Amino acid sequence: MTDSVVFAAPAPAPTAPTPLSPTARTTHKRARHHGVAERAALVDVLQSAKLCHMGVTVGGVPMVFPTAYGFDLDGPDRGGSIYVHGSVASRSLAPDSEICITITILDGLVLARSGFHHSMNYRSGGIIGSPRVVTDGDERVKALNLIVDQVVPGRSQHLRDHTRKEMAATIVLALPLYEASVKARTGGPGDDAADIGVETVWAGVVPAATHFGEPIPSEDLDSGVALPDHISTML
Amino acid sequence: MTDSVVFAAPAPAPTAPTPLSPTARTTHKRARHHGVAERAALVDVLQSAKLCHMGVTVGGVPMVFPTAYGFDLDGPDRGGSIYVHGSVASRSLAPDSEICITITILDGLVLARSGFHHSMNYRSGGIIGSPRVVTDGDERVKALNLIVDQVVPGRSQHLRDHTRKEMAATIVLALPLYEASVKARTGGPGDDAADIGVETVWAGVVPAATHFGEPIPSEDLDSGVALPDHISTML
Repeated sequence: MTDSVVFAAPAPAPTAPTPLSPTARTTHKRARHHGVAERAALVDVLQSAKLCHMGVTVGGVPMVFPTAYGFDLDGPDRGGSIYVHGSVASRSLAPDSEICITITILDGLVLARSGFHHSMNYRSGGIIGSPRVVTDGDERVKALNLIVDQVVPGRSQHLRDHTRKEMAATIVLALPLYEASVKARTGGPGDDAADIGVETVWAGVVPAATHFGEPIPSEDLDSGVALPDHISTML
Repeated sequence: MTDSVVFAAPAPAPTAPTPLSPTARTTHKRARHHGVAERAALVDVLQSAKLCHMGVTVGGVPMVFPTAYGFDLDGPDRGGSIYVHGSVASRSLAPDSEICITITILDGLVLARSGFHHSMNYRSGGIIGSPRVVTDGDERVKALNLIVDQVVPGRSQHLRDHTRKEMAATIVLALPLYEASVKARTGGPGDDAADIGVETVWAGVVPAATHFGEPIPSEDLDSGVALPDHISTML
């Protein structure tokens, strides 16, 4: 697998592409001896995003869908568990083959003197495996709460319990946080030496981050309900 | 294809899921008669993001990679062209089967009174098809410039020409902007009536957007090179 190219090329080699995963298909070609660092990098990626992109084979096509996720490093799967959810009616959530969950955080735009060396700073983790339909009631509730808490940390504890009807309508899938890889790029552009002397083009990095704005109360919210700390602290 | 569920469920139905594409696999189950609106929505999505997620079947697995893209509504493919690029050495860019390119913009976190009705506001477009390796020299140059201009509009015209060596090292793939679908969600939470009466939980939307920060000049940039308008205007 040469995903390294797809991630960032034609661009400077990522500065920290260290391997985590145990199989050839999730092991990058370079720098194979940084497993600990990569495990931490995977956790960082998991903590830093609100949504993932899930690859599911549908009719032979590797369809890619954005969806919410949650994760539990102490989950019952090898290496911990990442969870996605959906309606029980969804065919996309009943795959009979392996899936891929990719999470990407854009950290900056890398503007070089040449088009060739333009790139992006990013952190991205990819997890592949055969999804497990979560059937245990306690794990299902925990997974759904983790998905809510991924959106706003600490929120699930302020909500009512899930109803039996809601639980019956929802399917939860788990994937082990085991066969995974992380790629990242940091730093400035990697221009050719010949271009650096020609100082007519600005070069550098434009930092990027997801910004959360002023919360908009629901129209049907009683004005007496103040914005709770678990929301204001994430802004 | 029931991607509608994966996109947003268990959540309120998207407010504007209108069909664009001509095949069953990219046509949503509801609201089939809004093709014009959806075409505009696809263009909006294409214009609004910096990276896409590409689904490619590798060893039977629907691998998902983040990558840069560019698009040309007047491109030679049916409906126009979306372009991705990479190293000629990349196996992921030489797929022998169809691929999927998905672009997602996160617009807000939808916080409901129940976990079940939590959702996100987003715009997402998915394009599927058999990739075409771009071989025409002029189209290759245009595509690479479009990819740069997707990162920073108008930048490519300020850069030197691509070298022969750079062009030889780069593969460009095109996909028609034809078999595509757009999904979006806007608005506040769709709480159950029974939950709205219980005013103990804040409900509403936390807007989200990608924010670009103060540009960081490259360490090797001459201090006499000012930040150009094409960068300052995007901040």
